[in-house]
Amino acid sequence: MKVDFWFSELQNEDVKFGVRVKSHLFSKESKYQKIDVFDTDFYGRVMILDGCFMITEKDEYMYQEMLSHPAMVSHPDPKNVLIIGGGDGGVAREVLRYPVDSVDLVEIDEDVIAASKIYLPNIAASFSDKRLRVHNMDAFEFVDTDRSYDVILVDSTDPIGFAASLFSDVFYMKAKRLLSAGGIIATQSGSPFMNPDFIRKAYRGLTGHFKTVKPYLSFVPSYPSGMWSYVMASNGKIEKRRDFKGRYMNSEVYQSCFVLPEFVKKTLEG
Amino acid sequence: MKVDFWFSELQNEDVKFGVRVKSHLFSKESKYQKIDVFDTDFYGRVMILDGCFMITEKDEYMYQEMLSHPAMVSHPDPKNVLIIGGGDGGVAREVLRYPVDSVDLVEIDEDVIAASKIYLPNIAASFSDKRLRVHNMDAFEFVDTDRSYDVILVDSTDPIGFAASLFSDVFYMKAKRLLSAGGIIATQSGSPFMNPDFIRKAYRGLTGHFKTVKPYLSFVPSYPSGMWSYVMASNGKIEKRRDFKGRYMNSEVYQSCFVLPEFVKKTLEG
Repeated sequence: MKVDFWFSELQNEDVKFGVRVKSHLFSKESKYQKIDVFDTDFYGRVMILDGCFMITEKDEYMYQEMLSHPAMVSHPDPKNVLIIGGGDGGVAREVLRYPVDSVDLVEIDEDVIAASKIYLPNIAASFSDKRLRVHNMDAFEFVDTDRSYDVILVDSTDPIGFAASLFSDVFYMKAKRLLSAGGIIATQSGSPFMNPDFIRKAYRGLTGHFKTVKPYLSFVPSYPSGMWSYVMASNGKIEKRRDFKGRYMNSEVYQSCFVLPEFVKKTLEG
Repeated sequence: MKVDFWFSELQNEDVKFGVRVKSHLFSKESKYQKIDVFDTDFYGRVMILDGCFMITEKDEYMYQEMLSHPAMVSHPDPKNVLIIGGGDGGVAREVLRYPVDSVDLVEIDEDVIAASKIYLPNIAASFSDKRLRVHNMDAFEFVDTDRSYDVILVDSTDPIGFAASLFSDVFYMKAKRLLSAGGIIATQSGSPFMNPDFIRKAYRGLTGHFKTVKPYLSFVPSYPSGMWSYVMASNGKIEKRRDFKGRYMNSEVYQSCFVLPEFVKKTLEG
């Protein structure tokens, strides 16, 4: 018999999503947020930040692949990559599949990385790759660096609280300065169904600084509504330069992910 | 202050999805199932059958449009349409946007129709259209009729319990016999993430009787995982013959919905 022991995310004040828990593996109030790791039958191990699903073993590849590969396959030769957030290591894992020279990962919360290494070792395996450098600091400060990047991936939490600056106009201006010629930035931008403001904010913010701005979508069942959005932007061309086949992504998905249902188009216009 | 009053669907034994309830408008144990209607702040009014979300005012258009329009825009001249299930009236509403001559709707449970007319009047408005004929009987028996249809839409509950026969080989054989030359059938086939068996069963069943079988996907946030699948099949060609723009569907969505993430492709092969 299964025990009636559940963790639920309050996705907004009227909607919640729950998973039955086998055991509560980890809990810590870090300097920045509450970190929990649960073991579950259906979703495997799940990491929760401030009560919200960040990653589950069962569907993490959908998000990690779709934040990483559309930008990576669109750049002619991505050698130096910057990941903002991504303390679980999943986006780094996807990026390190390419022959990159270096990946800088800027995760403000070292406790997220530590917990991932212990409880999500398959996702965090990328941390042992010598091409990866971890910077435990505020990404908003890191982007004052004079390094240059071919691809920047913003794998942040939602634009509320300490991650709000990562969706600001100033951040996008700084990010643009960091990109090499033809460089590409991609950011997660939330659920267009639950939080249309997030994608609208990212889309408008990036439109102010980049010639080409392409919103796109994927399924992520453990995220609110299961419908997740991303925005990719560049002052160069955005077109497929190579193929990548993962567990979610393939060449046809690269084309179809940019197609938006009418209500999402209206969200961006409105 | 909002009251701590929730309805939750147990999507499987380990996952649940809940909405905060303002009031419980209707509850009845019909001959076939338990019918409930709740009023909620986020999703509007929601109809629940045997504990599962059937329809919510906020996202119903995603499902209704994507079950109806891909088939309707693919047929050269759809005049006579058969809807299996669909007692809320939403699929009929979408079909009646076209210049059809007749729509037969076969809903086993007259109590679902009665509740929709009272509590979901915007969705059930189609029941007053003179082109629509309602048949309160088992669809598995109805398909022995000698009428002929250009499009058949299977808007059933999941293939467990009394709706199981609607995913059977015998049902697909009977449906094929009912279709006019070039006729098209489309069926909902569940969440490929939560219940990969449903889409596999529909895909394989239809492949046994039709030359062209095309699975496709849409987002439906209130359904398990937010990722919903459908399968369309015909012995004629399936290609876009006309444009339709709704709240979800548009001409680009018609193309992109057939693109399957790798894990869904593997589900159908495996």
